[in-house]
Amino acid sequence: MQPNAALDALRTQSPLVHCITNYVAMNIAANVTLAAGASPAMIHAPEEVADFTPIAGALTINIGTLSTPWLESMKAAAVAANVAKMPWVLDPVAHFATPYRAKAALDLLAIKPSIVRGNASEIIALAGGAGSGKGADSGDRVSDAQRSARALAVRHDCIVAVSGPVDFITDGKRSASITGGSDIMPTVTALGCALTALVGAYAAIAPRFEATIAAFVHFAEAGERAGAETSGPGSFSVAFLDTLHALQTGDLLETRMSWN
Amino acid sequence: MQPNAALDALRTQSPLVHCITNYVAMNIAANVTLAAGASPAMIHAPEEVADFTPIAGALTINIGTLSTPWLESMKAAAVAANVAKMPWVLDPVAHFATPYRAKAALDLLAIKPSIVRGNASEIIALAGGAGSGKGADSGDRVSDAQRSARALAVRHDCIVAVSGPVDFITDGKRSASITGGSDIMPTVTALGCALTALVGAYAAIAPRFEATIAAFVHFAEAGERAGAETSGPGSFSVAFLDTLHALQTGDLLETRMSWN
Amino acid sequence: MQPNAALDALRTQSPLVHCITNYVAMNIAANVTLAAGASPAMIHAPEEVADFTPIAGALTINIGTLSTPWLESMKAAAVAANVAKMPWVLDPVAHFATPYRAKAALDLLAIKPSIVRGNASEIIALAGGAGSGKGADSGDRVSDAQRSARALAVRHDCIVAVSGPVDFITDGKRSASITGGSDIMPTVTALGCALTALVGAYAAIAPRFEATIAAFVHFAEAGERAGAETSGPGSFSVAFLDTLHALQTGDLLETRMSWN
Repeated sequence: MQPNAALDALRTQSPLVHCITNYVAMNIAANVTLAAGASPAMIHAPEEVADFTPIAGALTINIGTLSTPWLESMKAAAVAANVAKMPWVLDPVAHFATPYRAKAALDLLAIKPSIVRGNASEIIALAGGAGSGKGADSGDRVSDAQRSARALAVRHDCIVAVSGPVDFITDGKRSASITGGSDIMPTVTALGCALTALVGAYAAIAPRFEATIAAFVHFAEAGERAGAETSGPGSFSVAFLDTLHALQTGDLLETRMSWN
Repeated sequence: MQPNAALDALRTQSPLVHCITNYVAMNIAANVTLAAGASPAMIHAPEEVADFTPIAGALTINIGTLSTPWLESMKAAAVAANVAKMPWVLDPVAHFATPYRAKAALDLLAIKPSIVRGNASEIIALAGGAGSGKGADSGDRVSDAQRSARALAVRHDCIVAVSGPVDFITDGKRSASITGGSDIMPTVTALGCALTALVGAYAAIAPRFEATIAAFVHFAEAGERAGAETSGPGSFSVAFLDTLHALQTGDLLETRMSWN
Repeated sequence: MQPNAALDALRTQSPLVHCITNYVAMNIAANVTLAAGASPAMIHAPEEVADFTPIAGALTINIGTLSTPWLESMKAAAVAANVAKMPWVLDPVAHFATPYRAKAALDLLAIKPSIVRGNASEIIALAGGAGSGKGADSGDRVSDAQRSARALAVRHDCIVAVSGPVDFITDGKRSASITGGSDIMPTVTALGCALTALVGAYAAIAPRFEATIAAFVHFAEAGERAGAETSGPGSFSVAFLDTLHALQTGDLLETRMSWN
């Protein structure tokens, strides 16, 4: 399924996406998902996640502001997604920063996510390499994370997507690069986390590799256009949501994507 | 008290509103309340809610990102509001989605809120009917929720307000419909939750039925004007906050409201 | 170090700032910090804070939406900052509102913050006086908090900064007043909390008194410029982030600051 066909399906079906994400990202992730055309739901109580996940079309898990009760809910929701044969997306935010966080990412990875999305430092470290990340921002280049991404994808039978100036998405055999976006984007918090939610939305209506590509192309196209008409992080965020919403079937350029 | 008189009182008294709401809504609910003219306070620790609630002029409770420690605080705050004879507002977000959430909504309803605000699916389900909601978005029409709203209002001696393209507000005997707003509003997350906070602000300075109407008219007027000058969810949110703040006594149109 | 030299250092070093803040402020605090030129990280799990804090250049603690598990993490992070001889900033939001909150602020104060930032009511009450604050908004004037600020600074060997129409910053001996900003700012939620995060960012790259002044001058300059071109809280927030980001070395006016 090509990105434009996926966008069409997203708008027609408006899938429900169960998002367990961090406190910083919750509002912008919900707004990005809604603007794109899906319906996000943020629910995390251990008493209800396993009941709620199967109602949705996909699940996304982001460990940004992790804590132990939330981690239990993340695991329960991921298991429920697998039982329901639903796609789920893992976003291992800054997992290399502390032993606690590193173990949480590995525990979630062991539950077999359909898709892993992170920045270059996160993907390199998740594959066992030594990246240069410290906090939530990447200290490494996407090109240096490609081998790690392919290895992770093969080892865990999942799609791995690396965000950066040129994004990289692989299923272990095939790989695509996506251009676009704006250099203002790293100065707005939680856009990567919001992209994870959008990947979940697309995964609810398209096969996982094509869904990941479509979400990245939608994001990159909106980022490119919003960046062209704004000059700071405040006005960028406004234009970005408007553009995610305004883009129509046919607007997602095939030229943003190249096969590696 | 008419909407314009209520707006005038809101601006003069700038009431403190105790909001226990979900993580997605916290920032926008606080900004809507501040822009309108009141002073929001988000406080949820079980060790302090019962001390804090009576300091405020009203309490609002929203179960969006529910968890057990928060539910305990919600109950304690609601009881404290009743003891202090203060109005409190219940927003039963997606309560039909899981048994855990459904029980929480019923437990809170049993503590006798002054006002219940929800979308059509939430109000139909709360009255015991079978709506078609799945997540936070309504799957039903406001007109299909009117009978449920009246029944709930009588049964629980409260105001029931149903948000939608045309809102419906009832005390069980009298009913008002409110027009206005914008079809962009459902593409911005947590605006319904923010309206709940605004209803609380008005309830601190006006009788509960008139307060609910005033909050909805203020919201609808700002939404209508903001929608007319913007074309996407990002720019709408900006214009909406500006307009909530800019509206002055006399700007709230009586023609937005009709009695049923 | 003068404000312009500090801004230059902030942009060059882009320090990592560990922020433990409230749910309302998380997104805007991260966006303000990023727009200004630093890299924020919101991490609060008791299992990891003591590991994470020393990786950062500074720590900020804000008790807005306090709860007991978070308070434990705040204390552990503050102790870790002291062990690592890192600066940390305390923002005692509405600490006077309940006994629980008051005790939390005193417990944190006893761990010896490098800098305390609050509004006039918060600083007066922290020094043992009787202010007129109720919720998160100040009920007192900055000029009435100057004596309290000096006393606090001497007693606890820290910088004390009081936000308001004219800000006041003291180390107990020297004091500076900062003009600027906009009267729209109190109608946007959590800007004070965001300023606390920015103070932390500057404290990572400059001595604590000069860092506090630089953060306040950067904030006041951006607020003044954003306020001049907007007329409501929505458009102000957008312009404010753009301006925080756009300001360059040399733009921070010495005339904003006067020594008392």
